[in-house]
Amino acid sequence: MTTATSLDQAFLADFHDTYQFGATPANGVDRQAGTREDGQIRDWFRERAIAAGMEVRVDSVGNLFALYNWDPSLNHVFLGSHLDSQPLGGRFDGCYGVIAALHAAQEINARVQAGELEPVHNLAVVDWFNEEGARFQPSIMGSSVVAGSMDRDKILATKDSKGISVKEALEDIGYLGTDVAPIPTAYAEIHIEQGRLLERHKTEIGAVTQSWYTQKLLVTVNGEQSHTGATYMADRHDALAAAAEIVLKTEAVVDTFPAEEIVTSVGQLTVEPNSPIVVPRQVNMVVDLRAHLRSQVEEARTRLLEQFKEIEARRHLTVLAQDYDIRDHQHYPLEGIELTEKAAAEAGQSCMRIETMAGHDSVPMNRIVPTVMVFVPSVDGVSHCEREFTRDEDLVAGVKVLAEIASKLVSGSLDAVEPGEAEL
Amino acid sequence: MTTATSLDQAFLADFHDTYQFGATPANGVDRQAGTREDGQIRDWFRERAIAAGMEVRVDSVGNLFALYNWDPSLNHVFLGSHLDSQPLGGRFDGCYGVIAALHAAQEINARVQAGELEPVHNLAVVDWFNEEGARFQPSIMGSSVVAGSMDRDKILATKDSKGISVKEALEDIGYLGTDVAPIPTAYAEIHIEQGRLLERHKTEIGAVTQSWYTQKLLVTVNGEQSHTGATYMADRHDALAAAAEIVLKTEAVVDTFPAEEIVTSVGQLTVEPNSPIVVPRQVNMVVDLRAHLRSQVEEARTRLLEQFKEIEARRHLTVLAQDYDIRDHQHYPLEGIELTEKAAAEAGQSCMRIETMAGHDSVPMNRIVPTVMVFVPSVDGVSHCEREFTRDEDLVAGVKVLAEIASKLVSGSLDAVEPGEAEL
Repeated sequence: MTTATSLDQAFLADFHDTYQFGATPANGVDRQAGTREDGQIRDWFRERAIAAGMEVRVDSVGNLFALYNWDPSLNHVFLGSHLDSQPLGGRFDGCYGVIAALHAAQEINARVQAGELEPVHNLAVVDWFNEEGARFQPSIMGSSVVAGSMDRDKILATKDSKGISVKEALEDIGYLGTDVAPIPTAYAEIHIEQGRLLERHKTEIGAVTQSWYTQKLLVTVNGEQSHTGATYMADRHDALAAAAEIVLKTEAVVDTFPAEEIVTSVGQLTVEPNSPIVVPRQVNMVVDLRAHLRSQVEEARTRLLEQFKEIEARRHLTVLAQDYDIRDHQHYPLEGIELTEKAAAEAGQSCMRIETMAGHDSVPMNRIVPTVMVFVPSVDGVSHCEREFTRDEDLVAGVKVLAEIASKLVSGSLDAVEPGEAEL
Repeated sequence: MTTATSLDQAFLADFHDTYQFGATPANGVDRQAGTREDGQIRDWFRERAIAAGMEVRVDSVGNLFALYNWDPSLNHVFLGSHLDSQPLGGRFDGCYGVIAALHAAQEINARVQAGELEPVHNLAVVDWFNEEGARFQPSIMGSSVVAGSMDRDKILATKDSKGISVKEALEDIGYLGTDVAPIPTAYAEIHIEQGRLLERHKTEIGAVTQSWYTQKLLVTVNGEQSHTGATYMADRHDALAAAAEIVLKTEAVVDTFPAEEIVTSVGQLTVEPNSPIVVPRQVNMVVDLRAHLRSQVEEARTRLLEQFKEIEARRHLTVLAQDYDIRDHQHYPLEGIELTEKAAAEAGQSCMRIETMAGHDSVPMNRIVPTVMVFVPSVDGVSHCEREFTRDEDLVAGVKVLAEIASKLVSGSLDAVEPGEAEL
């Protein structure tokens, strides 16, 4: 068995090593799914896994697995997250969970080899393809295909803004695999919180109870192109002015809900033809609605759609809004939450129950196998940016808790537990 | 001398022929400066000019000249406009003026050859490079270099959004010339109005008296990138929400001015990183301000800059606004306006005085030589869009008036006149 200290140091050395892949000048990373940088960190991960005595497999949608097959007849407990990042994203989001899983798995293997642990399942570490959804939409692709909530062929045909498909991107970096994926029996994921609750409560570990209800609206404003110099204001049907109202209505719709129970955003907006001296013809934008309760998202959506109609009528243009990427409000199994609490106590870490506002690979996995989701603190609660940060001691504490969870999962602790529930 | 009827038919045949270059499905054209389509129409124009017995020259900034050199010792009266278009632009903007000039010039040459007209100047038809400023900013490049208000080397180094320079684009289409440009002695340009005044007054010809005062602001909003799911609204510094306020403030600033004396727009806006699940870090946008009076633009600008400061303070982000592309309010010489009125009367067309809200190649040319600017009606006043339209009879009436103006210019009518004045 490795000592606690050597586990810490080996983990930190590997984790800090990942900063090189897609490094940005302001201490972030840009490692979007299926890019050269994504391929580089995957090659690095594959080498590390093989050196740790694991079998590496790549499935037909680019998920990368590293396996300890103690008994070839057994299914696998999965530990994982994702190595891809947002454009100018942080070093921690996703990558932490994969490297933590790699080291927790080595710790479990050492215990098995030492005869300290009798596993009833094998163990797999997974890097899910395209969790971020920056280059290819929607997000959380690889795990959703494995969970059966997205179609493999549709995902492979999905194109980025330059017309390159997922299939082509995976082929380019050598990660369109033909291996049979292992079969999951349980799933655990550790991730930075990306919010400020753990920090506010000075707590080291979050036992995640449920995911927020989320949905997006794909909004297209169709106005009329005209000359910025020669067209009187009264004669215009300016798609961007209408879109600007939609951005501000989307921001303001939260005002009648409790402050920390809903967030709304417009992250993507493109203008056509986007010429300095042309009044815009068309704007395409994505409105993102997330809340503690499904009813809150639905109420916000209804109010926005009414406001879009008013904008249409007043500006004599059209606003089309399509619902997509709806993700159910979903509970993680209570037994898994208690398992995290117990593991934290054993590792000497403080722990609190917490919800996840963001989506994670654990959300689709929670539909098919009992799933445990764990958070470590984020400094200032910032994420998806270069100044995203988590302290080394918090990272290391999380690896220890994940190892304890993994130890219980390979021992069969959640074997009798149902996957998470989709409704309150 | 050609008869009026054959002039009409030859002009319409040529003009309708140009619709093929960069044709779009909805009856528009997409023929941005320095693209393959721009090269195609230039090759076509060059052939037509050679067939009409003209000498073709291309200068070192891509201006294309077709010359009648009746006496090699004389300078040239220029007639022209531009063959480039906006993305999904109309068939008439610019192209009409070049083809009208080509046919007016042939009419004048026929009169000279027939001994009916004794020219004191030679005659040049010009297609100015990049009037539109869609692909390469700023607009009105080629004529501004000839007029000395833009620097040739800076223009050649200007890059499009893909990093291709003007020099490279001109080389690609074979229009980075080495010919000596002819020297102008006067300039006349005919163009569609792009507004609705001629239509409203049921008048065939506009004698343009002055250009509006215009300026642009390059605005950069720097916020902070964060996660659309995990970041509470209170923790955000959303660059797009701030930009949306700027778009709406820009639209609203006109409200305290007379309705048809000012126009304001945001035509170009780009979001970084533009991912559906990232709160935007940065927005770059162009604010366009144009008015009858310089004082109106200055007042609108001052008020907007105050509002930007308020947005900065409230949202805890930065808004940088740089002035650029300032174009003086400028009068066309009175003698040229009267010359248009006389030419219209001789051609049997109704005529009114009118201002131009849009910029044209005639604006820089008016700084160095006496310049005449003429408008024909635009249906519904729409322009920079595919449904831009002018009726054949109005196009033909304009060619006749332009030929009469050209006849007077080559006879020396404006030789004693100063170029346009820059101040009221």
